[in-house]
Amino acid sequence: MITIALPKGALLTDSIKLFQKIGLDFSAFLDSSNRQLQITDPTNTAKAVLVRTHDVPVYVEYGQAQLGVVGYDVLLEKTPDVANLADLKFGVCRMSLAVREASSYRRPSELPPNGRVATKFVHCAKEYFRRLDLPVEIIPLYGSVELGPITGMSEAIVDLVSTGKTLKENGLIEIDILFNSTARLIAHPLSYRLNQDHLCDWVEKLRLQV
Amino acid sequence: MITIALPKGALLTDSIKLFQKIGLDFSAFLDSSNRQLQITDPTNTAKAVLVRTHDVPVYVEYGQAQLGVVGYDVLLEKTPDVANLADLKFGVCRMSLAVREASSYRRPSELPPNGRVATKFVHCAKEYFRRLDLPVEIIPLYGSVELGPITGMSEAIVDLVSTGKTLKENGLIEIDILFNSTARLIAHPLSYRLNQDHLCDWVEKLRLQV
Repeated sequence: MITIALPKGALLTDSIKLFQKIGLDFSAFLDSSNRQLQITDPTNTAKAVLVRTHDVPVYVEYGQAQLGVVGYDVLLEKTPDVANLADLKFGVCRMSLAVREASSYRRPSELPPNGRVATKFVHCAKEYFRRLDLPVEIIPLYGSVELGPITGMSEAIVDLVSTGKTLKENGLIEIDILFNSTARLIAHPLSYRLNQDHLCDWVEKLRLQV
Repeated sequence: MITIALPKGALLTDSIKLFQKIGLDFSAFLDSSNRQLQITDPTNTAKAVLVRTHDVPVYVEYGQAQLGVVGYDVLLEKTPDVANLADLKFGVCRMSLAVREASSYRRPSELPPNGRVATKFVHCAKEYFRRLDLPVEIIPLYGSVELGPITGMSEAIVDLVSTGKTLKENGLIEIDILFNSTARLIAHPLSYRLNQDHLCDWVEKLRLQV
């Protein structure tokens, strides 16, 4: 029986819809009274574990789940050893560079020398500024990255933006896009190569849905 | 005016009570309808920023806040460059090594050679096993660490335990304690040495409360 790692949060509803289309029902995870983190679908065909979006590639990399759904942003940030098999088209967002609207910065190159950039995506931000050959100090934060420029701790932030509402509410504007992101179907590379539990058939069925 | 970094979550209520005792009221953060992450106390004496517990030392290290309240566990995990000034006695919990109750492991040394340990506290776990001279593979997770042993991905976990309810619900038992933790008062080292904004007086007042 295959196990699928599903991400908590923004991608969950669309992920569950996708698997329903190929006959696997994990909608019990959407029930607000549900406390189980591991369920089997009603036809007893596949299992699913419900984990943090950043943990999905960990479960797949260690072979604890053969398939997983995760944002492209997480794959770029963590570069896990997993097979990236399909763009699932949902969960559209972008990794953006944003500054205070009241500031004078309108292009990355206008940021002050060795300016500070707060972000949850340290690896992505470092790579971006390295390519621009722009030396900045990256401040790693866990949450509320928008507080960086508001408190004056950083000149800019690198963060995931979907509607742009949070930026607007905090008086921030985007001045560059690092990359666009969508949900991806990932697999444990060895299980996929060896076609364990007919994994390739499942992947093919999923690909036909997007 | 000094700025204080307060941690979201388990330590918030007691932190706010502590500052109320010395005349600073940040109880607006406890109002469930509050969306502000930065407030000034009603007497206009001090500001507070509400951030993730792991971000408290970042704000203090960068001098964006002169004081902060954070768990000892976070200080040991991140080893930030901050002054650790007082044990505030609340937020009592422990960093524990736990395994499945159904397993045969009852001591760390009984874990299998190169066994796997899932944790959010990678640095603490590595340091602990290094001292025991026990080679293990650390699996970094963001949440629901208890799923590690349940899914079979890891033999053990290292995690913060307060009541022990989560462990019990998941059929896990503690087999060792890495260290005990409480909330700590931290300060920006330079601001403290230079006694900026009478920081030493505030620290003294706080020390008298614990």
